[in-house]
Amino acid sequence: MEKEVFENNIAALKKAQLHLSASSESVRNGALRLIYEELERDKDFIFAENKKDLEEAKGKIGEAVLGRLKFDEKKLKSVRDGILDLIALSDPIGRIEEKRELDFGFILTKKSVPIGVIGMIFEARPDALVQIAALCIKSGNAVILKGGKEAVNSNRALFKVISAALEKTSLTSAFLMLIESHEDVASILKMDKYIDLIIPRGSNAFVRYVMDNTRIPVLGHADGICSIYVDEYANMDIAVPIVLDSKIQYPAACNAVEMVLVNEKIKECFLPKIKKVFNDNGVIIHGDEEVRNIIECESLGDDDLFKEFLSLEVSIKCVKDTAEAIDLINRNGSHHTDAIITENAENKNLFFSLVDSADVFANCSTRFSDGYRFGLGAEVGISTSKIHARGPVGLNGLMSYKWLLEGHGEIVSDYANGKKVFHHKDLV
Amino acid sequence: MEKEVFENNIAALKKAQLHLSASSESVRNGALRLIYEELERDKDFIFAENKKDLEEAKGKIGEAVLGRLKFDEKKLKSVRDGILDLIALSDPIGRIEEKRELDFGFILTKKSVPIGVIGMIFEARPDALVQIAALCIKSGNAVILKGGKEAVNSNRALFKVISAALEKTSLTSAFLMLIESHEDVASILKMDKYIDLIIPRGSNAFVRYVMDNTRIPVLGHADGICSIYVDEYANMDIAVPIVLDSKIQYPAACNAVEMVLVNEKIKECFLPKIKKVFNDNGVIIHGDEEVRNIIECESLGDDDLFKEFLSLEVSIKCVKDTAEAIDLINRNGSHHTDAIITENAENKNLFFSLVDSADVFANCSTRFSDGYRFGLGAEVGISTSKIHARGPVGLNGLMSYKWLLEGHGEIVSDYANGKKVFHHKDLV
Repeated sequence: MEKEVFENNIAALKKAQLHLSASSESVRNGALRLIYEELERDKDFIFAENKKDLEEAKGKIGEAVLGRLKFDEKKLKSVRDGILDLIALSDPIGRIEEKRELDFGFILTKKSVPIGVIGMIFEARPDALVQIAALCIKSGNAVILKGGKEAVNSNRALFKVISAALEKTSLTSAFLMLIESHEDVASILKMDKYIDLIIPRGSNAFVRYVMDNTRIPVLGHADGICSIYVDEYANMDIAVPIVLDSKIQYPAACNAVEMVLVNEKIKECFLPKIKKVFNDNGVIIHGDEEVRNIIECESLGDDDLFKEFLSLEVSIKCVKDTAEAIDLINRNGSHHTDAIITENAENKNLFFSLVDSADVFANCSTRFSDGYRFGLGAEVGISTSKIHARGPVGLNGLMSYKWLLEGHGEIVSDYANGKKVFHHKDLV
Repeated sequence: MEKEVFENNIAALKKAQLHLSASSESVRNGALRLIYEELERDKDFIFAENKKDLEEAKGKIGEAVLGRLKFDEKKLKSVRDGILDLIALSDPIGRIEEKRELDFGFILTKKSVPIGVIGMIFEARPDALVQIAALCIKSGNAVILKGGKEAVNSNRALFKVISAALEKTSLTSAFLMLIESHEDVASILKMDKYIDLIIPRGSNAFVRYVMDNTRIPVLGHADGICSIYVDEYANMDIAVPIVLDSKIQYPAACNAVEMVLVNEKIKECFLPKIKKVFNDNGVIIHGDEEVRNIIECESLGDDDLFKEFLSLEVSIKCVKDTAEAIDLINRNGSHHTDAIITENAENKNLFFSLVDSADVFANCSTRFSDGYRFGLGAEVGISTSKIHARGPVGLNGLMSYKWLLEGHGEIVSDYANGKKVFHHKDLV
């Protein structure tokens, strides 16, 4: 798209967003209901377009990725159910977060508002396009959608159906935009005047590229280097299945475990057990010298310590206590998700209070780090930033607020010279 | 400071912060109380050091800036009172923001935690150093302090007194650092591994320099281009004093008005009145052609439209209605503070709902945009970002959260294969 035309389109998106954000809840829910219906009505068209993508991709991408690319009756039902869940949620716009009388009849209100225009870059999963568009309608945000290139036909079809449904409402589809090229992604990163937030999902390298090439705030995470510390007071009956699940339940996920830290007091008991289940499931172990004195495994190179394998490989290292585990995790981890396995309350509390990560778990799998599992509804991403939103981000992460102050002629000089005084009375 | 030593010091700050954040409220309040006492005990030393700065600065900086540089009994009382206010506030750390049972006995808790290490760059106001250090102690954040160079002796003295007080507590002063050189500022901007947030206060050019030169999130604002729209339904008795106060009460402030938009239906009534009070107070008016047809003034060049004068100059332009005013403000303003003067509820609501600014006011001065006036306690800055914190930022803006999940051996594969199901029961 030509640069000037493209910029004008983005500017128009910003204006459309302000009108969307001022629309009533019933109008936004009505639009979601219509999308819910038209997705079912137009499903044959959508499935046919998805088949083109699947055929094109066959042999080029792995089975797991093909599975995510597929958009069938089951996926349709899941996204439609998701829309019904969203409709049922209370309106996130216009919530009164604070209300304070500054002086008699001089009222300050802090009200929730949408963030504005969001650039959302996501993997080749057509259901993600529907989820994101629906979240943005509910929360009053305009969105620029960029999906994985393997899903190009599916995304176009879904975008067409959603836009057509919106055109039948008073909202119109002016707050939605689909982009496809890398050039367009590079262009939006420069438009900090119009775009309020970028949420990139994808490879580390891509997320880093986004972070390094924009002044727009970025929500997300580059690395997902999760650790589990198996304490001296761990219950072996749960430690072994938890570590195994954290590694193999979905090894390519950002919340899969990469580093297992084992208290040296239980190494002789734990290591043979974990080696057996890892061997049975094809997981390659990289162990430090202390580990290799007990079990046979690959050696742990300096590069393997806190390495993000994203595959059936794992590093194991012995530590002398909880404090050492915490220190290693804080210095080398990615502040995403880290777990302790222990029956000792003191060590658990130390871990909970000192591990500086978005998600800190005790006695369960790191794979629970997920918006749906947390009960947040749909997830737009997982943030390792400590600013704005941290960990799995749902609807609330798409909201900002503004301060409304309503007076009757108040001027600051009256307060500066003492003629009047604030009384700051909280009303909410 | 040598680069490696400096980086080690910053890394140590991060570690000290985690221990600060795990300390009890009574320990942090006790430290604040000790600082409160020792500031009084060591005041002669502080005043003497401040005198050096004042003598050095005399003749080089304006009266207003000199006034801010001064640290006397009055300022001391004000910062000490501020510390007592902070002690009285409830603990911002460890607040339970959400609590949810994911499955029987499987509990997720969202708990407030400090952001971490904050780089705070502020103007030559010694009282700001005390306020910021106190806010960070209360909120559990480590802070790198960089004050205006004119206050170098005062800042060293205050930092010495505060550090000495902290050294008498179990917290130690390891989470506080004072830096002075531009080179050190440039260095910290690169340390995104250790520093979680930068809050720069100062000139537009400086804030922009910070934003363009760091991957660390930045909280603040570059421009403060505030507008007032005088509606056709404005009450002239309040419109004139409000516009005057917004301009002259403190013209160098970011919340001073720079652009006045006048509904053309009341231009003949309003413009002569505002011209009179502006003339009486030495304010230069830049008016568009429609304005100049009614009152004598400078002409409004393209560069003066929404220009940040920060002085006794103002632009005035006629508009045909509220919608045009909103559109001009959204396209050209800085999303900081904008006000409408009107007795018409519909126009006020339109302005409140569509103006995309942090602070949107009706019938009062733009100068009320301030943390203290809003009742937030001390203010660390005003944010025009829509991410994390917006508008005046107080203690809450220095907090993040983390997700704690406590189980008894739960693994994801049991939920993925349907053996178990989430019930997501909110407990708070």
